[in-house]
Amino acid sequence: MTSATTMDTSVRQKFELEAWSSLRLVQVEHALGDWVTADAPQGQNHGAPAQLVDAMRYAVLDGGKRLRPLLVLAAHEAVCPIASDAGVNAALRAACAVELIHAYSLVHDDMPCMDNDVLRRGKPTVHVQFGEACALLAGDALQALAFELMTPQDGSVPEATQARLCALLARAAGSAGMAGGQAIDLASVGQSLTEAQLREMHELKTGALLQASVMMGAQCGEPGAQALAALQRYGAAIGLAFQVVDDILDVTADSSTLGKTAGKDADNNKPTYVSLMGLQASRDYAQRLLLQAQSALDNSGLAQTQALRALADMVVNRAH
Amino acid sequence: MTSATTMDTSVRQKFELEAWSSLRLVQVEHALGDWVTADAPQGQNHGAPAQLVDAMRYAVLDGGKRLRPLLVLAAHEAVCPIASDAGVNAALRAACAVELIHAYSLVHDDMPCMDNDVLRRGKPTVHVQFGEACALLAGDALQALAFELMTPQDGSVPEATQARLCALLARAAGSAGMAGGQAIDLASVGQSLTEAQLREMHELKTGALLQASVMMGAQCGEPGAQALAALQRYGAAIGLAFQVVDDILDVTADSSTLGKTAGKDADNNKPTYVSLMGLQASRDYAQRLLLQAQSALDNSGLAQTQALRALADMVVNRAH
Repeated sequence: MTSATTMDTSVRQKFELEAWSSLRLVQVEHALGDWVTADAPQGQNHGAPAQLVDAMRYAVLDGGKRLRPLLVLAAHEAVCPIASDAGVNAALRAACAVELIHAYSLVHDDMPCMDNDVLRRGKPTVHVQFGEACALLAGDALQALAFELMTPQDGSVPEATQARLCALLARAAGSAGMAGGQAIDLASVGQSLTEAQLREMHELKTGALLQASVMMGAQCGEPGAQALAALQRYGAAIGLAFQVVDDILDVTADSSTLGKTAGKDADNNKPTYVSLMGLQASRDYAQRLLLQAQSALDNSGLAQTQALRALADMVVNRAH
Repeated sequence: MTSATTMDTSVRQKFELEAWSSLRLVQVEHALGDWVTADAPQGQNHGAPAQLVDAMRYAVLDGGKRLRPLLVLAAHEAVCPIASDAGVNAALRAACAVELIHAYSLVHDDMPCMDNDVLRRGKPTVHVQFGEACALLAGDALQALAFELMTPQDGSVPEATQARLCALLARAAGSAGMAGGQAIDLASVGQSLTEAQLREMHELKTGALLQASVMMGAQCGEPGAQALAALQRYGAAIGLAFQVVDDILDVTADSSTLGKTAGKDADNNKPTYVSLMGLQASRDYAQRLLLQAQSALDNSGLAQTQALRALADMVVNRAH
């Protein structure tokens, strides 16, 4: 850490994040590759049909920033600087599970009856590649697989941890979380929303799952009340910041940088932070949310929060 | 029981099932009505948007035979003749959760990109009533809600039970269960299947969730190994019998009796037990599966199996 004193905070955090995250990303990719398979679950006769598994793997593997898995792992490490094998296993399972929920939501969101998008992470979307029926089922199966991953039957994760992880993820994914936010989003096209309404939509649509990632990581250890409350505030701030920055990038970045169609929200007449408060005010707001996230960690009583700090910085200052 | 000796077995079972099930059906309907709501989950700021919840309630309430919930409750009562409050609560939650999974699968299955059906339980299907995007999200949210129901945060269900219920339901719903079976079903239209291939498809598509219902009910108590193995065999037999009878009814009943479009499988050139083995052989097969289910219960070591026996009888001898 001594040599870092000559660098400014942002540069130091970025460098550390890359070093920290590269190992974790390898673990997550490896685990996802292992767990999204056609193998029959223990005690069942049949595995999954090949075409469905192909579509599930296509939706999940080789793409995405893996922000949610990294948040799970960073929160777990903040709570448990010296982690047990069971805790590490639980956190890796939770990290993959939340990514499966994210991946399924993208598959369904891209379908013709929703956003009707043909490009995702630079590749044809799942329904373009495999057909609509297969995309629908692949999304459904990915959601179920998320809960399967968190409930291993080999004794490797305590049942109490399994239950808490399932509880957090179910609430974040459901009608008062991600799916609810998407429903509000659909209903809001062409509508004029207040900032409070826009914030509620995004707290559900994107924020709930990002916040749950942080809380799931924490629940793989044994967090105290002060740490839990701080991580809840941290998760809320970066969840909102993520969407504000998404809205900024939708008007400032091009499609090839984003890996998806740029300018789509404006074209679809969707309310965004940029359309509501303007570009500069949106950028200022994102920076304020970053400060809120850092401030929450300052008051967490946790010692090892560098990865969480760097991830917050990345969420706000990313280019895509 | 003494007056029943003058009746034949089938009549006695039917009468008992109606008496037994009427109370449980009221409990299940009441619980579903309470739990499929817009209330914000504990610790979250927002509830679910009204239109999404309307679609979810439309999909779940006031319809359906509730076979899966009844199987959960019957299996729980077989394992725990004198049940604890926690066990009864867990079983009711499991019963509702499995029905939510069943309901979501019907919503997605009816969509234009799948079976494109407009009538379900005598009502317009969810996408006809609420639009395709809302139907897609309502199905997604119902799946998440199933896992939310099984993980209450009020201490009413032991965390070990929560974890086991989530494990069973996730595997039965996913790619090596219901969603996988639907994918095989889609791919099999116009194909000629062997009986083994047809059985595999149905073991996944319908059987896995029916069998899981039985196992979930058992896991709300503390079943012994002999009982668990017997209930697994019972669940497999009625799971398969259910589909054989479905195929029979598709050609022998009319749409108003079924509450859905009759003759649809034949019209869609889908392989069925009737198309494979003929009507009479299918009927004989269903009766053999009923005997297998009853025989499994004979060897379960469980005393209170009347409800499970009567449900098996209903599955095979139902008119719709």
